Amino acid sequence: MFKILDCTLRDGGYYTNWDFDTAQVDTYIQSLNRLPVEYIELGYRSHPMKAYHGKYFYCPVYELERIKKLSNKKLAVILNEKEVSAQNVGDLLQPCSGLVDLVRIAVTPQNLGNSLALAEKIKTVGFEVALNVMYMSKWPQQNNLPTNLKQLDGLADYFYMVDSYGGVYPEDVKQTIAMVREHTLCKIGFHGHNNLELALINTLSAIDNGADIVDATILGMGRGAGNLKTELLLSVLNTKHQLQVDFNALGNAVDCFEPLLQKHQWGTNVPYMISGTNSLPQKDVMDWVTTRLYSFNSIVRALQNQKNNISDN
Amino acid sequence: MFKILDCTLRDGGYYTNWDFDTAQVDTYIQSLNRLPVEYIELGYRSHPMKAYHGKYFYCPVYELERIKKLSNKKLAVILNEKEVSAQNVGDLLQPCSGLVDLVRIAVTPQNLGNSLALAEKIKTVGFEVALNVMYMSKWPQQNNLPTNLKQLDGLADYFYMVDSYGGVYPEDVKQTIAMVREHTLCKIGFHGHNNLELALINTLSAIDNGADIVDATILGMGRGAGNLKTELLLSVLNTKHQLQVDFNALGNAVDCFEPLLQKHQWGTNVPYMISGTNSLPQKDVMDWVTTRLYSFNSIVRALQNQKNNISDN
Repeated sequence: MFKILDCTLRDGGYYTNWDFDTAQVDTYIQSLNRLPVEYIELGYRSHPMKAYHGKYFYCPVYELERIKKLSNKKLAVILNEKEVSAQNVGDLLQPCSGLVDLVRIAVTPQNLGNSLALAEKIKTVGFEVALNVMYMSKWPQQNNLPTNLKQLDGLADYFYMVDSYGGVYPEDVKQTIAMVREHTLCKIGFHGHNNLELALINTLSAIDNGADIVDATILGMGRGAGNLKTELLLSVLNTKHQLQVDFNALGNAVDCFEPLLQKHQWGTNVPYMISGTNSLPQKDVMDWVTTRLYSFNSIVRALQNQKNNISDN
Repeated sequence: MFKILDCTLRDGGYYTNWDFDTAQVDTYIQSLNRLPVEYIELGYRSHPMKAYHGKYFYCPVYELERIKKLSNKKLAVILNEKEVSAQNVGDLLQPCSGLVDLVRIAVTPQNLGNSLALAEKIKTVGFEVALNVMYMSKWPQQNNLPTNLKQLDGLADYFYMVDSYGGVYPEDVKQTIAMVREHTLCKIGFHGHNNLELALINTLSAIDNGADIVDATILGMGRGAGNLKTELLLSVLNTKHQLQVDFNALGNAVDCFEPLLQKHQWGTNVPYMISGTNSLPQKDVMDWVTTRLYSFNSIVRALQNQKNNISDN
């Protein structure tokens, strides 16, 4: 049976700068205790930075200890490969020992090779390791991916296909899993984005094609157009795979993020759709949409220019 | 090449009681003039009723004439089979002659046989005719469907598969089209709902399997969880089928319904997801959700009871 990882706080943090109300977090954690989710990813684990970020960008030990007491799930944190080196990963992660079960590494396909030493070090400290490899819709252009995949066996616990642009289709998921399977026995994960409202069907395609773990967030809270909605995945799996779901607990989890949805209004829209269909970075789109300085029309024009490599004024 | 029908005013009318601001309608019609949509469905055509309904529930001739002048598209109206008989269809439709191109009939699969006389009469008055047959996810239980399908050739211009519960999957669409094709040469249409965020992929499945016409609405405005979003369909077809799309016009169409989305907040949520996965009537769910008298939890419980045939208190 495949597993589900809920990363609402980590991916939702892009909208709240990783600040969440403690009572809200506790309701979320307690609701998830009653739902068929294996892992909860709480946030990033990072060295101190100059810019202000909230608690779940750092996941301090006191908060990990507090949540460990509340939760009956395995806990996960994520690192940005470009910000952490194998040398200092001990300092960063040793304090989480016994609190965190899984450490994920967000990495570009270009840097996958470099991240293997980091993954090995994290395993040595005693965690499960996942490599979350981004920009899946652009992998066909990555010649060195097969070589790197061959090195994963026995090193990483999960190899994640991350559809950063929300631009892949179910058939792409099927083909990519087949390609990955040719080169590694590592367990496969899928993390979908919802630019084209394909996060559910892509995730079902991943599951049908043997994925071992899939990600979702409550109300789809997440960067840009957002993620697969945990409540949608569980509702569908309830009828499609006879997965037991406590809908009262699910309703509580949803209710607790509803005010944030009203405030931040994540979800897809025309600019995110265009970034999805053309594999253009939604980080730029998100900045433009959330600051509300530009009309949708000018954003669409800028994206079309970016697609056509015309520099905008 | 398949055709697109936009039914924003007709399906969106469930949220506004078919009242729309004239300036808003005009912006919508003028934006669609610049988009690759073949038909615009304006609303219902109905005999006077006791309850109050807005203009687009009746589509009076003066409004049809006004829009005919504004629009370069074919215009459509829809009738409810259960409210119109072949005897009085002349009175109802003769005044629309030269203004409306396509008349659609919303009909249950049980009543499809009875609706054929109505379809024949509408053809005689001089319109294209579509039969919009509802509850697609329950068709496998309809034994007389093949017999009725055999009578469609030369009678109806389009036979529409309507996923009323938003509960079908792409594979179901493929299989249902194959079943329909066994019995009739009539052109096939698909009208999807978005309870499970499958409206896009189901519509793409319909197109890939030879559907001749598909429906969408701006911002997915429509009954319950809403429809396939016109802007999503066009964005995807722009890259997938090289369909020319004027994104400024598309942005204008979206902007003009955005205030209504803010007000009525259609879209999917846990109760609609459960109604989708279990093929339960979303009309009931919509009443419960929009009146806000019940918590999501009690709605979910009521739906689960309905599924299990337990009477609720």
